[in-house]
Amino acid sequence: MSERVHEILSWYGSDNPGTRANLARLMNHGRLAGTGRFVILPVDQGFEHGPARSFAPNPPGYDPRYHFELAIAAGCNAYAAPLGFLEAGAGEFAGEMPLILKLNNSDSLYGGNDPSPAITGSVDDALRLGCSAIGFTIYPASAARNEMYGQIRALAEEAKRKGLAVVVWSYPRGSGISKEGETAIDVVAYAAQIACQLGAHIVKVKPPTAHIEQGAAKKVYEKERIPIATLAERVRHVVQSAFNGRRIVIFSGGEAKDTAAIFDEVRGIRDGGGFGSIIGRNSFQRPRAEALDFLRQVMDIYAGKAK
Amino acid sequence: MSERVHEILSWYGSDNPGTRANLARLMNHGRLAGTGRFVILPVDQGFEHGPARSFAPNPPGYDPRYHFELAIAAGCNAYAAPLGFLEAGAGEFAGEMPLILKLNNSDSLYGGNDPSPAITGSVDDALRLGCSAIGFTIYPASAARNEMYGQIRALAEEAKRKGLAVVVWSYPRGSGISKEGETAIDVVAYAAQIACQLGAHIVKVKPPTAHIEQGAAKKVYEKERIPIATLAERVRHVVQSAFNGRRIVIFSGGEAKDTAAIFDEVRGIRDGGGFGSIIGRNSFQRPRAEALDFLRQVMDIYAGKAK
Amino acid sequence: MSERVHEILSWYGSDNPGTRANLARLMNHGRLAGTGRFVILPVDQGFEHGPARSFAPNPPGYDPRYHFELAIAAGCNAYAAPLGFLEAGAGEFAGEMPLILKLNNSDSLYGGNDPSPAITGSVDDALRLGCSAIGFTIYPASAARNEMYGQIRALAEEAKRKGLAVVVWSYPRGSGISKEGETAIDVVAYAAQIACQLGAHIVKVKPPTAHIEQGAAKKVYEKERIPIATLAERVRHVVQSAFNGRRIVIFSGGEAKDTAAIFDEVRGIRDGGGFGSIIGRNSFQRPRAEALDFLRQVMDIYAGKAK
Amino acid sequence: MSERVHEILSWYGSDNPGTRANLARLMNHGRLAGTGRFVILPVDQGFEHGPARSFAPNPPGYDPRYHFELAIAAGCNAYAAPLGFLEAGAGEFAGEMPLILKLNNSDSLYGGNDPSPAITGSVDDALRLGCSAIGFTIYPASAARNEMYGQIRALAEEAKRKGLAVVVWSYPRGSGISKEGETAIDVVAYAAQIACQLGAHIVKVKPPTAHIEQGAAKKVYEKERIPIATLAERVRHVVQSAFNGRRIVIFSGGEAKDTAAIFDEVRGIRDGGGFGSIIGRNSFQRPRAEALDFLRQVMDIYAGKAK
Amino acid sequence: MSERVHEILSWYGSDNPGTRANLARLMNHGRLAGTGRFVILPVDQGFEHGPARSFAPNPPGYDPRYHFELAIAAGCNAYAAPLGFLEAGAGEFAGEMPLILKLNNSDSLYGGNDPSPAITGSVDDALRLGCSAIGFTIYPASAARNEMYGQIRALAEEAKRKGLAVVVWSYPRGSGISKEGETAIDVVAYAAQIACQLGAHIVKVKPPTAHIEQGAAKKVYEKERIPIATLAERVRHVVQSAFNGRRIVIFSGGEAKDTAAIFDEVRGIRDGGGFGSIIGRNSFQRPRAEALDFLRQVMDIYAGKAK
Repeated sequence: MSERVHEILSWYGSDNPGTRANLARLMNHGRLAGTGRFVILPVDQGFEHGPARSFAPNPPGYDPRYHFELAIAAGCNAYAAPLGFLEAGAGEFAGEMPLILKLNNSDSLYGGNDPSPAITGSVDDALRLGCSAIGFTIYPASAARNEMYGQIRALAEEAKRKGLAVVVWSYPRGSGISKEGETAIDVVAYAAQIACQLGAHIVKVKPPTAHIEQGAAKKVYEKERIPIATLAERVRHVVQSAFNGRRIVIFSGGEAKDTAAIFDEVRGIRDGGGFGSIIGRNSFQRPRAEALDFLRQVMDIYAGKAK
Repeated sequence: MSERVHEILSWYGSDNPGTRANLARLMNHGRLAGTGRFVILPVDQGFEHGPARSFAPNPPGYDPRYHFELAIAAGCNAYAAPLGFLEAGAGEFAGEMPLILKLNNSDSLYGGNDPSPAITGSVDDALRLGCSAIGFTIYPASAARNEMYGQIRALAEEAKRKGLAVVVWSYPRGSGISKEGETAIDVVAYAAQIACQLGAHIVKVKPPTAHIEQGAAKKVYEKERIPIATLAERVRHVVQSAFNGRRIVIFSGGEAKDTAAIFDEVRGIRDGGGFGSIIGRNSFQRPRAEALDFLRQVMDIYAGKAK
Repeated sequence: MSERVHEILSWYGSDNPGTRANLARLMNHGRLAGTGRFVILPVDQGFEHGPARSFAPNPPGYDPRYHFELAIAAGCNAYAAPLGFLEAGAGEFAGEMPLILKLNNSDSLYGGNDPSPAITGSVDDALRLGCSAIGFTIYPASAARNEMYGQIRALAEEAKRKGLAVVVWSYPRGSGISKEGETAIDVVAYAAQIACQLGAHIVKVKPPTAHIEQGAAKKVYEKERIPIATLAERVRHVVQSAFNGRRIVIFSGGEAKDTAAIFDEVRGIRDGGGFGSIIGRNSFQRPRAEALDFLRQVMDIYAGKAK
Repeated sequence: MSERVHEILSWYGSDNPGTRANLARLMNHGRLAGTGRFVILPVDQGFEHGPARSFAPNPPGYDPRYHFELAIAAGCNAYAAPLGFLEAGAGEFAGEMPLILKLNNSDSLYGGNDPSPAITGSVDDALRLGCSAIGFTIYPASAARNEMYGQIRALAEEAKRKGLAVVVWSYPRGSGISKEGETAIDVVAYAAQIACQLGAHIVKVKPPTAHIEQGAAKKVYEKERIPIATLAERVRHVVQSAFNGRRIVIFSGGEAKDTAAIFDEVRGIRDGGGFGSIIGRNSFQRPRAEALDFLRQVMDIYAGKAK
Repeated sequence: MSERVHEILSWYGSDNPGTRANLARLMNHGRLAGTGRFVILPVDQGFEHGPARSFAPNPPGYDPRYHFELAIAAGCNAYAAPLGFLEAGAGEFAGEMPLILKLNNSDSLYGGNDPSPAITGSVDDALRLGCSAIGFTIYPASAARNEMYGQIRALAEEAKRKGLAVVVWSYPRGSGISKEGETAIDVVAYAAQIACQLGAHIVKVKPPTAHIEQGAAKKVYEKERIPIATLAERVRHVVQSAFNGRRIVIFSGGEAKDTAAIFDEVRGIRDGGGFGSIIGRNSFQRPRAEALDFLRQVMDIYAGKAK
């Protein structure tokens, strides 16, 4: 096992060996094995956005097995999905790659400014499906945030006792902040901090913009001259905000966009010390060959094989 | 056991043999045994709409034994009902046909736009009554949807551990969507996806119309030119939305209507690759002989014995 | 063990020996060991105010280990923090000093006048991390106060059964009182009383001003000529309000301010019979050497080694 | 994942994906990864025979970390040991190789003809230590056998529910049979069958001799002319007796002996279709370099790289 | 905290911070604080041998408070006793020193060769009494040994989850061995190994003699020329047998004897790398002043302040 993986594991000294072994499994699988970098395939859009919006652009994706196979072929560190999608392939692909069971999800058939996801799986489901980690989304700035914090607290305690790792998607959204604020540097850094304080081993946030949402924060950023001009600088600040880099922070790809723009973003994450990307739509909405090529290039950037 | 039944069972590779055996039982009973097609008799209208609205048109239906006997005589795959109706006949008809215990129900004595059903049975009730499956209704688009999702998550986990199959009625309804939207193609496909992601083995939805409810979905349907002109096309899209056809999707008959119209609908479901129908009022509100003849014709369409 | 520690422990005669031993541990550690006085380092600002506002003034504080080390080096009685911060160091610093796990926290990404914290840890978390006490914040005057009172009631009951001590931060805030009222002498004394009545072993309040918020109280203060002119007098009244001094009451430092002003405040607390201070931002936002010097002087005041 | 591993996993169709993933993990680790062959390092002799008898021949083996490191360096599929030995290294070596927690053990300080092991670990211990499987020894022919069968039944049920694999050491011994009978072909084949019938995924037995212990069996072996002249023939019969080869059967090395003799035995196991060896004393009682060379040669025989 | 204490804690990497903190507490209290050496006062003789045999030689010892006070005054690392004795003083002496609750005990009113202790306390008792560890006696070589192994397995799992340390008294005794064999070097080393394999953090055994009890062991001791001539050599072998010195092994004082003989024994334990002594009768059966002087001298030997 590489020095880097050992170093990262040393940050989790309160966890039992089972949880640490599962963190190691995530870091030792795929093309980035041993580097301490991550590219994870998440496919919860079927639940979150509906099937046509998710899979019509590349119809093989309607089949749950497609995503297992894509993640394996691409050499991702792990595949993350809700209960149904994992149940539909976990037997056939048993032992082929680390799995993350997403334990809460929101659908888009009921609107509202304050997201409030449903619990859609359990820690015992994760064990019976052979998962290495549970995943959970919190929405800081939502009126329902405290309910989510309480849920992940209890689920994380159980998962840690049973030797699983805990991945928290931390997406500020809701009536507490503006739309622009959802990706503001102060808000994203804060979201990373909250997830870490709730006991997450791995935190997923969105790439931050240079916008600063909160007045009280703005004063500090200006007074302390925190560098936030480039994406790399902002990522560095977010990583620092995640226990000074002692928690794994990965970044979402967000909506499908221009491939060159994504590579630039990945370079920024890498240069700022981010641990990797979790790329859903930009992977599975492309034709398979194109997706594999795309993910290979992303991994090459993280592995230092490409600029 | 037929090739087709083996093929369908192969989709449920994460389930234990008990659950798979109960799925097989549902597929190997009645006139459609072995075809992989379903006609199920559901009678929860007494709870949902009240006795007179449900049974006055054909008064023998007040007697719970009537429906057991009807489903057996007609050669349905299964009979589904709430706790009381099953308790009133499960002993007398023990072993005669597969049963599905509906675990939640709403009555009509309390109004409101956002349906919120009560839990009215347990997984252990299903075992003691000799059922092959539990049934559960979710109402995506209701303000109370997350409570239902959380309930079926827990009930499905228990049912699967105890070797039962899980049937989810997925009926979008509530303040999140319009009345027309309840059967919109995008909404019905989404509802099927949600039920599958929550771990349903069998999903029941309504036959979709060509209406598209959500703006974000409309763009995709138009851009990707998803065919939705005919019922068969729409059914095909819904089945695709249920894990690319790897989950059993059946369709409700909805309100009583013209018999010819129903047969047309059934042909559309069959031609689109739907797995069958669940037909309540159109069965038990007719005189018995007429109902048997009606169900025979529906089954003939599914079995390919009639156009 | 000193006479004073024995005397203080004698006030907690309904508690089991485990809880009393943990209270003793808090009193027998650090530079103030045996004096019955406390200086505690709390670091929950990362969760409460966000990382940059908390740690940018002294960036080593982004690292959770920094605070363990600071508290140990300074000779504080204990270190208090939320789950994530404790998990990130409890293994490495196991047994080095008493720890307090804060079981609820609020973030600042969702506004509102009535604070409503989330549960972010459990009593069992406190045991597995080797803590001596749980910490909990109540906000009397918030519309959500009763929910908090109910939570701490249950958590305190469990903590006491398992041999832990209970520290309650009692901060009146919310639509029930004015901004000025949050530190009014009648309100702070009342907040101390509520925390004691809820079963707290140690109560933390803010230094009170001479303002009187409530009309009904004002009449009594004037009629009974309760002395509240000086801070020492007000502290004496608060301590009296905490079961006539038979509960440990400590005072927060609040926002960073002039060092001389803090020392004056500490003298007032000492002279009024307060048991000590809980000083977060004024400690960890200074450079380490300066913080150690600062804390040493605060402790000297409490120990009577300085005026 | 190799075809052979997929084929082997297909035999365990009643198990959940978690258990199958852990079986896959055992088959996909080390120098024999993907071959469907196993070489496992077991070190329970400290408990079973005492420390000096176990470790004095190669004193570094007194240190629990030695065996983790040896198993990793040699490229074994897994390391199996009792609770204490795993606790003493599972943190440091987290994620480095599959672990098997032995849940029962016998010491040699109390004699008697009928072995009766103690329960020394739990399924939850296996989870918190990050193990892929539980191990358990049964002693058919012991007066206490039924107690053991009942214990493994309950432990296996729990382990399978929680996604772990089950390895059963099946060693006939006790007042029911003669000393020579312990390795008689009929008895070893019977022991393999019992372990399979009790639900083991992997069975460990001793290499059988040509002796036939039981009269009733002898008649059948002679009548049906079951070939048992060579070790390969006998191994083939044992494998057949383990559900016609649809359960993994591995063979113990037994007491330390001549290296050439061991290689011959391994060839016999391989040629008879045995799945591998579990080699304790012959590995860890040699000097490390010699042990690594020895294990390499054993693996080469199984991998077909050596005769 | 001293380097040595940090080193010792590093051996317990599978334990949670709570357990490690309690191990640290045991090592950081009393006159030997920080040295990694232990002198513990155990008083379970009242239960084991009866009151007069235990306390008549020094009647103040009838009073449970006497032993708390003695252990504190002497600067022992901890005081260990059954439930009743701890309940009778834990409140009065709360927080004054680490406590160990002995969870099983045997009385002498029922004879027999095979000791079989009763469970006399619980892990939750240990928490409510403020203990740092549970204590448990196993009797390898007793016909009832397996029952004890199973009990400590379960109690240790619970204690570790709740952040307590586990101390195992391992006293071979019973029909499996001879009287002389109870302290034979091979048997004592084996007893230490068994306790470690059962998951003990701290093991207590008797000082071993040069006798070798078991034939199979004798061959190895002679062949490998394990040095066992002096007590120091034998202690070194026992410590090696306890995971190569990576578990804390302390030695009992046994029956009251000549003081000079005890000091010699303590020197042997120290020189052989033993971690300390647990001295009951030799402490509390002497007059208090004499006992304090005696314990001071023992500690001086361990601390290297005396030869």
